[in-house]
Amino acid sequence: MQTEFVISTRGVGLYEFTTELRNWVTQQQIHTGLLTLFVCHTSCSLLIQENADPDVQTDLRHFFHRLVPPTTDPSMSYLTHTYEGPDDMPAHIKAAMMPVSLSIPVVNGAMALGTWQGVYIFEHRAAPHARRVVAHLSP
Amino acid sequence: MQTEFVISTRGVGLYEFTTELRNWVTQQQIHTGLLTLFVCHTSCSLLIQENADPDVQTDLRHFFHRLVPPTTDPSMSYLTHTYEGPDDMPAHIKAAMMPVSLSIPVVNGAMALGTWQGVYIFEHRAAPHARRVVAHLSP
Amino acid sequence: MQTEFVISTRGVGLYEFTTELRNWVTQQQIHTGLLTLFVCHTSCSLLIQENADPDVQTDLRHFFHRLVPPTTDPSMSYLTHTYEGPDDMPAHIKAAMMPVSLSIPVVNGAMALGTWQGVYIFEHRAAPHARRVVAHLSP
Repeated sequence: MQTEFVISTRGVGLYEFTTELRNWVTQQQIHTGLLTLFVCHTSCSLLIQENADPDVQTDLRHFFHRLVPPTTDPSMSYLTHTYEGPDDMPAHIKAAMMPVSLSIPVVNGAMALGTWQGVYIFEHRAAPHARRVVAHLSP
Repeated sequence: MQTEFVISTRGVGLYEFTTELRNWVTQQQIHTGLLTLFVCHTSCSLLIQENADPDVQTDLRHFFHRLVPPTTDPSMSYLTHTYEGPDDMPAHIKAAMMPVSLSIPVVNGAMALGTWQGVYIFEHRAAPHARRVVAHLSP
Repeated sequence: MQTEFVISTRGVGLYEFTTELRNWVTQQQIHTGLLTLFVCHTSCSLLIQENADPDVQTDLRHFFHRLVPPTTDPSMSYLTHTYEGPDDMPAHIKAAMMPVSLSIPVVNGAMALGTWQGVYIFEHRAAPHARRVVAHLSP
């Protein structure tokens, strides 16, 4: 089975959609299978991360902002792809460093996520976006 | 078919489990298929790397330690998620940069690994852990 | 179904093979499925990136060259695996940071790539190589 999720983002950061995924997987009534997610964009990422302490999400955002700062930062002046603003090329770089696809086994009818694992879109752009994620569930 | 591997780690570094995987795949007697691995944690990673020269593993450990140092390092003082010690948040960051899931085709009954490719858990925490990897093999 | 693509590289950079993939997927006449790619090497990566502006590829190459410079750079003198030259260990590090496998749903007989997404080999070595990619398509 396949479906598509659309996640609305409002600036750089992590947006969880574990509950939406869980609901859809439950409805498919597959006991043993494999769920694959694919994000149809090159300026955001799919990420599995801790969903207990929201500070983890803040720290992730800060770390990657420092590792790949906007092109207004002098250290990034060598970048040339800046059509859409100072967060354009850094977003592509972050998208290269984090997953565009993820596969999660389905065991006993549920995603085999660990206790603290949540599924997120990591939005790398400042402007609001509607991010498409295609989900494929095979028995 | 599905199974679960548990890899015991004793500090930061790479732990190979290619042989355990190979043995399990052989037992399943699948000629053509796809093996997917998923690690149920947010502070370690799955990694395929060179298994010939152990120096590669040492160098990987050192590189990522310098790229994402412990929060005791002044350059990391902006991180706030430090409940479990100075290696807590850096472990989550490294887990965002390296795979949580991997897919390896099975060709002629064996994983299609290249000559020098081994499959590892990259442990990002200093304390010993038992890391769970769910394996899903579809024909 | 499975097949193998061989991509010839001539130095560090991105090599697109979206068209070859698309042609093969079309020939398989699968309406709904999942395409998985796996690269059999530890010194190059699979990457989905923007295929509109070639500057994105140049910028990606430059960013990763600065993040992981050759071992001739004094900042990298701590690396020990240098048998095959100054781009040897940096190639393994980059291969740890970017995908070795990718999964792309097939929807209505075609890969569910976004408008600007292309599929690339990111070659991390300076010398020419023939890079093997195993493709697995399941219905």
